Amino acid sequence: MTETPGNGVVVDPEPLARFCADVFERAGMDRNSARTQADVLVWANLHGVDSHGALRVPRYVAWLSSGVMNPRPRIRIDDNSPATFVVDADRAAGGVAMQAATRHAIAKARSNGLAWGIVRKTTHTGPMGYYAAQIAEAGMLAIVASSSRPLMAYHGARKAGVATSPIAMAAPCNESDLVMLDMATAEIAIGKILKARATGDPIPPGSAMTADGKPTTNPLEAAVPMPLAGPRGAGLSLLLECFQGVLVDHPLLAPALRGEPVVHSQNGLVAAIDIGLFGDVKAFRQRIDDLGEAIKSLPRAEGIDAIYLPGEIERETAAKRRRDGIPLPSKTWKVLRQIARDVGVETPQPRDQR
Amino acid sequence: MTETPGNGVVVDPEPLARFCADVFERAGMDRNSARTQADVLVWANLHGVDSHGALRVPRYVAWLSSGVMNPRPRIRIDDNSPATFVVDADRAAGGVAMQAATRHAIAKARSNGLAWGIVRKTTHTGPMGYYAAQIAEAGMLAIVASSSRPLMAYHGARKAGVATSPIAMAAPCNESDLVMLDMATAEIAIGKILKARATGDPIPPGSAMTADGKPTTNPLEAAVPMPLAGPRGAGLSLLLECFQGVLVDHPLLAPALRGEPVVHSQNGLVAAIDIGLFGDVKAFRQRIDDLGEAIKSLPRAEGIDAIYLPGEIERETAAKRRRDGIPLPSKTWKVLRQIARDVGVETPQPRDQR
Repeated sequence: MTETPGNGVVVDPEPLARFCADVFERAGMDRNSARTQADVLVWANLHGVDSHGALRVPRYVAWLSSGVMNPRPRIRIDDNSPATFVVDADRAAGGVAMQAATRHAIAKARSNGLAWGIVRKTTHTGPMGYYAAQIAEAGMLAIVASSSRPLMAYHGARKAGVATSPIAMAAPCNESDLVMLDMATAEIAIGKILKARATGDPIPPGSAMTADGKPTTNPLEAAVPMPLAGPRGAGLSLLLECFQGVLVDHPLLAPALRGEPVVHSQNGLVAAIDIGLFGDVKAFRQRIDDLGEAIKSLPRAEGIDAIYLPGEIERETAAKRRRDGIPLPSKTWKVLRQIARDVGVETPQPRDQR
Repeated sequence: MTETPGNGVVVDPEPLARFCADVFERAGMDRNSARTQADVLVWANLHGVDSHGALRVPRYVAWLSSGVMNPRPRIRIDDNSPATFVVDADRAAGGVAMQAATRHAIAKARSNGLAWGIVRKTTHTGPMGYYAAQIAEAGMLAIVASSSRPLMAYHGARKAGVATSPIAMAAPCNESDLVMLDMATAEIAIGKILKARATGDPIPPGSAMTADGKPTTNPLEAAVPMPLAGPRGAGLSLLLECFQGVLVDHPLLAPALRGEPVVHSQNGLVAAIDIGLFGDVKAFRQRIDDLGEAIKSLPRAEGIDAIYLPGEIERETAAKRRRDGIPLPSKTWKVLRQIARDVGVETPQPRDQR
């Protein structure tokens, strides 16, 4: 594929990750942390969640330069009980803080059976699936979530009141490695509104409202996503704030709603449960496989070609992109070339130019 | 209010609970367990969840008589790690098993910080909010869920593949005692389909399908509820089965989908987190109040009279019904009088007849 404004470029994951890491290192992060954060972004690109991928690099650089994101954080982990811990992220890059919590959760669950960690004062946490997948790959059950500032309508309100808080749950199996749900609490991802703006397609009715709180299907007018299934998505997001920011005295909703000045920050939740406590892990994996097979064998509804398990489509996308490379639209590529020039690093070599 | 077929009766919660307990005792349960189960049903009636209330008594009696529900279970609790436990319910009445798990979770979280329990082989678990509220009232964060047999469409399938698994999350506060989300993973509760059948009103588009998998808004044709927000509700329900039945080797979906004979059974999850581990509990409660106030002060969307916190409407209903009594529709009252005659106990005295 040639690099044209119309169709962008295709890059391989490893050069893209090296590039992102190079940029973050130039922006002040140490090499290990820079690579950790880069891996999170490239994982998102691999799994088709491009809105959380390399596209984010320039904003991260701006945050690193303004101090919103701390390039040299002192991340402290406090084991406040055998099963719980708090990570004080000191405004670390979100991937670095969440990855530290994920590693700690796995080790702690291995020793103590279950680990439940809250990450305090991190920055953009990225795709929950990245962390949940690692816990499942370690043979454990995973729950990972994060919370943020008001971005989504609260049920019945005409301005944003809660975050689009994502949550992932994962379990390991044999055949397809893991079953993983990774969902936001909004009817529509903000990334999808942006995509519809580019294509001009309408967005689904009930998925977003205008800045002054009117329902709209016009992506150009859409400003605030609606909560998933009304009071349920709004309630889930609110409870996730209670379980994270409110719990560790770093609330993100109430101060913003009161009009206090707030800078970007997030909180996270990372939990791991050792399956071996409850029985034989191999037999568990087999039962998950059996369940997956039973679900995939269900008779299909009209117009449906295949029934997918949670996370299956994303994993198929990742397998394809590992093989064929990651397509970057021309707009993303332009953004990456600009940041490369700004900080003085080389862009990754697109596939066909090697 | 007079007892007429048109408008039913009004009974007070305490006599209704005594009546349910009397019936369960006659059906073989010991007095304490009978009262525990009765309290769960009456809590549902108080909170407006009448589909999970006294209406269920005859089915419970049938289950107790057939052995599906064990009137004299040997409930065993295995503390398999400092933070985790398994309750083997031995087919106990769901309220009895879940209540045992709830008490154990609170005690264990008080000692160890966090408790995460799986209830294995219980029967109808009832309203998740009943258990979650007790944990929050003990000053802790609560997560309570349950799982069951295939009752709801899996995304893309034309027959039931997953359960309508409910999940509740709760946090304590000062002003309104607690904030509690209690939701099912289905677009519509089966109870609401039954209600629409009685009134003849259509059900919302996309909320249910016919027995042969066609979308319908006709409650008389509606047989299978659709998952909440498509793949997300279906995925959440599937993961709840993985975290419960699959984990403790009592799966409820795969055997039913393979066509194996199954008798009614459920599993449950009861978790409690000690807020005091993470900071001052009083300050936490204040922050939840602050959050609730900020949410309730949001500007309202067109046509909205008030913004409610999760669980607030149900708590208002409970306050009203504690004061004014629980209205039982004539059909429910007829059912209760029949079971009273069948087992030889007195029905509760309706309000106006005292």
